[in-house]
Amino acid sequence: MLDPLLVPELREMLNDSDVSAMREFCAIFHPAVVAENLGALVTAEAWKVLSQSPLQRQVEVFEFMELDRQIELVSTLEKAHLSALIEEMAPDDRVGLLRNLEDDQVELLLPLVAQAERSDIRKLLSYPESSAGALMTTEYASLREELTVREALAALHSQAPNRETIYYVYVLDEARHLHGFVSLRKLILARPDSLVRDIMDRDVLSVRVDEDQESVANKMARYDFIAMPVVDDENRLVGIITHDDVLDVMREEATEDAHRMGAVAPLEESYLGTPFHTLAWKRGIWLILLLVAGFGTSSLLNLYDGVTEQHEWLVWFLPLVLASGGNSGSQSATLIIRSMSLGELNRSNQNRIIRREVATGVALGTAMGLLALVFSVQYVPWTHALVVGGTIALVVTFGTTNGTLLPIMLRRLGFDPALMSNPLIASLSDALGVLIYYNVALLFLRSV
Amino acid sequence: MLDPLLVPELREMLNDSDVSAMREFCAIFHPAVVAENLGALVTAEAWKVLSQSPLQRQVEVFEFMELDRQIELVSTLEKAHLSALIEEMAPDDRVGLLRNLEDDQVELLLPLVAQAERSDIRKLLSYPESSAGALMTTEYASLREELTVREALAALHSQAPNRETIYYVYVLDEARHLHGFVSLRKLILARPDSLVRDIMDRDVLSVRVDEDQESVANKMARYDFIAMPVVDDENRLVGIITHDDVLDVMREEATEDAHRMGAVAPLEESYLGTPFHTLAWKRGIWLILLLVAGFGTSSLLNLYDGVTEQHEWLVWFLPLVLASGGNSGSQSATLIIRSMSLGELNRSNQNRIIRREVATGVALGTAMGLLALVFSVQYVPWTHALVVGGTIALVVTFGTTNGTLLPIMLRRLGFDPALMSNPLIASLSDALGVLIYYNVALLFLRSV
Repeated sequence: MLDPLLVPELREMLNDSDVSAMREFCAIFHPAVVAENLGALVTAEAWKVLSQSPLQRQVEVFEFMELDRQIELVSTLEKAHLSALIEEMAPDDRVGLLRNLEDDQVELLLPLVAQAERSDIRKLLSYPESSAGALMTTEYASLREELTVREALAALHSQAPNRETIYYVYVLDEARHLHGFVSLRKLILARPDSLVRDIMDRDVLSVRVDEDQESVANKMARYDFIAMPVVDDENRLVGIITHDDVLDVMREEATEDAHRMGAVAPLEESYLGTPFHTLAWKRGIWLILLLVAGFGTSSLLNLYDGVTEQHEWLVWFLPLVLASGGNSGSQSATLIIRSMSLGELNRSNQNRIIRREVATGVALGTAMGLLALVFSVQYVPWTHALVVGGTIALVVTFGTTNGTLLPIMLRRLGFDPALMSNPLIASLSDALGVLIYYNVALLFLRSV
Repeated sequence: MLDPLLVPELREMLNDSDVSAMREFCAIFHPAVVAENLGALVTAEAWKVLSQSPLQRQVEVFEFMELDRQIELVSTLEKAHLSALIEEMAPDDRVGLLRNLEDDQVELLLPLVAQAERSDIRKLLSYPESSAGALMTTEYASLREELTVREALAALHSQAPNRETIYYVYVLDEARHLHGFVSLRKLILARPDSLVRDIMDRDVLSVRVDEDQESVANKMARYDFIAMPVVDDENRLVGIITHDDVLDVMREEATEDAHRMGAVAPLEESYLGTPFHTLAWKRGIWLILLLVAGFGTSSLLNLYDGVTEQHEWLVWFLPLVLASGGNSGSQSATLIIRSMSLGELNRSNQNRIIRREVATGVALGTAMGLLALVFSVQYVPWTHALVVGGTIALVVTFGTTNGTLLPIMLRRLGFDPALMSNPLIASLSDALGVLIYYNVALLFLRSV
């Protein structure tokens, strides 16, 4: 929590150059709290405070800093210090940062980092972004199955200082094939002379290194793990993904979906951290696309000019007709896209879902059509009201169907279904709505 | 993962009444996997398989079952067995289930449960839904600060079997005031004769028992904890919230937001688990509201009938004008609402964000207005195109402003800002769009 009292205190320490107070500040608070409060200072000041602490603490706080602050520090810190910092960072956090630096910056940095760390970095950088491999850390605790529980606990004791977690331990053979899993709690409760082999779980749930992070997050949510093992295609353990990273992924993915659904190209940083021109562009690009689509609808209306001239009242209900199609389509698209993100919608239940949405569309369409009929008869004669009601019924049915099918098609084609945003659905519904409205009107008014 | 081979195997076990195979099935797989595969059977069959296992295992699997399956089991199981099951469940899972039963069902069940468990249940049930208190478990590990590390480890060994986690341990005094925190890793690495008091962290981050679950989730995401302590207003520890529950909260909250943003009243269960009529109602209620709003726009257009008659071409661009307002408003509302959910937007930066959004609105409005001018001059004389361009500029500027201010106002009034859904924003923009469009046209065409 950003403590309103801490920041002035920090400024005072800086004014007085009170080194021991700075060191104490960084030592007593949780590193996330330190990072957050340092965030209120400019980078040079923040670094002046942090640099009084031992390297280990510097790294802990650095890992909790905002990405743009980290990037700024990378370009200002002295190279020798920077490489020491990077060597000490957790492999997943380190790679997360390096992925966001310019390529030539990375190439300048890497030679300064120790050989072992360097090859670890290169390996993790080679996995595609948003894959399990890009998310995992290589600092996991592991054991051999022939150890006794007593030996296992001693081994964990020596692994503890530089493992991301020692609460979940993986049982591997010489070639690092994943054979089992045992929790520290189970080890503590077991008799000291039992064998790891006899107490471990053999049915280890794992994810593949190339698996998408969203699917990893859904599995973690299902199984309640502190960490999930990541294996290659020969079932060799290559890393683990921890609960905190999954929480971040879930936030990111939900934010990305929300932005896409609102027709904003996803932001790479926080809303406030995104520069004005980037934000304007990520919105503008969609507004332009939707504007072009809007002119398509204009051309259609242009074609029906004669009808409008004869039946001026059609214009009164035009926004209503178009909105109804957009609204019902947005509802379906929202439900379908969210189900997909949660991993609920898959090939096996897809047709059932489509049938259900179409049925919902027909039910809602009928109800809304009747309501529209009742309302519009207040404005126009009932023959005209029938046109409005009938159009609304059709538009809602089609809107629901399109809102269902379009995201499913997008995903089938390999795109993110959330690209089928509410405004885009509304915009496609507009054109369809005009076509339906004017044709219903023509058919009906001619036959009356 | 739902294994396509396991379900037929289960059916075979049931046909052969192969009790030992059923027991083995429940023993070797992860309880979540067992629950998932049992989900493919009808409740009576699923229970037949599960009931062969020891009570402890039954509970582990039961906790991973879907809520509707749990509820069905509650009403079919024999009362004595049911109360044993409920006594064994984790306090948070148990209360999560009881909250979803009818009140009279709960009152029938509670007297069958042991006294200690019963008062724990009543206490947890008393916290409001979606509060930290409703989410927490009371089975946490705790120590006294005067213990040595050796004594602490021995104490944890005896607490381990019935604590949700022993990896995070809280240091309490006699009155359960929270004085410190120590991780099991730190205890393992410490010298056996050091005192807990000397190695514990004294700056313990905690949440208040009445804090909203969204705020709890945001803190957990920030601090990367496995568990977060929950305290009352005198800093006494009353429970802990674990990482897996926070992951569920984050999924739920993101889904609720997404549904609201798409104008669907949030579903209480999964999309597929929601009955047809519930789903239709949760959509229909919004569609009706938006339909009524749509008739408001119709009334406005009705007033401008004379203008439409004189300038038929205005109709061509009507959908375009209305869509532009709705689209830019949806973008702003999406960004603002998501920022609020992530805890980024607060009182201190609210005005800065409003200014920034208004500036974005002006910039985007100007750009879109110019583009609209260029496009529309293909259809109409340039005097008319100026009306279209000018209107689009105003509509986008106002849309952005409204999309920013409306969710902020909603929150100020104590409502969920996500109620300001994309369709609702679009619908409000429609009325405003008509007003702007016709007034710009009247002003401009009169002066030309």
